Amino acid sequence: MLRAALVLASTLLRSSRAFTARRAAPQITARRAAPTTTRMASAPALFDATPFYATAQPPETKDFMMQQVMVRVKDPETSLKFYCEVLGFRLVMFRDFPQWGFSVYFVAHGLTGPVPEDEDDRWRYCMTTPGCVELTWNHGSEAADGAVYNTGNSDATGSGDGAKVKGGFGHLGITVPDVYDACERFKALGATFSKTPNSGGMKGLAFVKDPDGYLIEVLPQGPMLTKPVDCDGVAVDGGDGYKDNSK
Amino acid sequence: MLRAALVLASTLLRSSRAFTARRAAPQITARRAAPTTTRMASAPALFDATPFYATAQPPETKDFMMQQVMVRVKDPETSLKFYCEVLGFRLVMFRDFPQWGFSVYFVAHGLTGPVPEDEDDRWRYCMTTPGCVELTWNHGSEAADGAVYNTGNSDATGSGDGAKVKGGFGHLGITVPDVYDACERFKALGATFSKTPNSGGMKGLAFVKDPDGYLIEVLPQGPMLTKPVDCDGVAVDGGDGYKDNSK
Repeated sequence: MLRAALVLASTLLRSSRAFTARRAAPQITARRAAPTTTRMASAPALFDATPFYATAQPPETKDFMMQQVMVRVKDPETSLKFYCEVLGFRLVMFRDFPQWGFSVYFVAHGLTGPVPEDEDDRWRYCMTTPGCVELTWNHGSEAADGAVYNTGNSDATGSGDGAKVKGGFGHLGITVPDVYDACERFKALGATFSKTPNSGGMKGLAFVKDPDGYLIEVLPQGPMLTKPVDCDGVAVDGGDGYKDNSK
Repeated sequence: MLRAALVLASTLLRSSRAFTARRAAPQITARRAAPTTTRMASAPALFDATPFYATAQPPETKDFMMQQVMVRVKDPETSLKFYCEVLGFRLVMFRDFPQWGFSVYFVAHGLTGPVPEDEDDRWRYCMTTPGCVELTWNHGSEAADGAVYNTGNSDATGSGDGAKVKGGFGHLGITVPDVYDACERFKALGATFSKTPNSGGMKGLAFVKDPDGYLIEVLPQGPMLTKPVDCDGVAVDGGDGYKDNSK
């Protein structure tokens, strides 16, 4: 119980709403545009995105692919170990640019076979793999003390005055067959949690931190389910309500 | 020529190395670990990521999926129009959380059929679609003057002292069959470029800005090719060299 309380306190002390809670389980939050006015009669009507479901994809874009998200990392070896060994990504391609002082490493999920060995084939393979994470290493950053990059979530890292910054980037998110099982494994491998599945107001999802402090949301591939106790010993009824500490 | 010079100047004046140039064409940059020591005999050896190609994916992670990257947006309607109508994403799922003051919109490429209408089916469909972009709207942000969120690339937005922040997030990136054609279309639709395909030091790739200023890299799905003139009238030999203004 003490342990659960400490975990909870730790979670609540963090100032980013991105992980104190940012998405509720669908069964308790599913809401269409119409009920909004019922539930919030005095609030202004929300923007209704429903018509966008019917927006046809422009034919010129039919083969476009969301291929990458790039984040800068302090130490590539540490990050690659975390992404590959803990999160199950695979290295698809890396490139060093010594003339410009940086290197990039593309990691991905969902690879069905070996990565091509030929450099040109590998480039094409990478550029047609959806949802790669591009880890960028600026050479020398690994020698810095402490965190180097602002994580986007009301973080003061990298700001001139040490004040928190209103960041746009929130997190990366992976989906897994079983959030609780995945988190047990993450914990056994020494991962740092911002939120275990049963802590905080949202049950059944978690946030782990990558080595630079970027948040990785862990969500189920099916319905939001809960288990009585999570990897940190937090009971499903042991978490607290939603705390929105920061936008 | 004046136009090309202005575009070039505009590009070079920007302080983020993420788009002044951050990745060269593979044919001119492909480099393995060994040549590094030859080319930079006096520099410390770079970290060699090659062994990670052989890192086996842990079996427990075989079904993990990089499903989302979350960024906050000032105005959801403006962002959805841009992502759907310009970049060719489709809305997969949205959820409003009026009790917490925010909404989220998942958009994706690569959908092969209609998005399920049933709410639970849609949730599952979304959670098993790789590389979604989750646009988060904090209600009320649309009324702010100017940009709201720090974009990650040496941006001062959202910092307490107005100074640039060393951000971790760099960009999203899409791959397309033809970068030049895609950019002609983006330009016709009024998109803002940080780098057209022929400007800057890297030929054949581009960066457009989304409505919040986040960078979207545009890369080819095949080899890096160039065309004589790009959407901004910049000749392929009209760009300048690499300028690394910021880490």
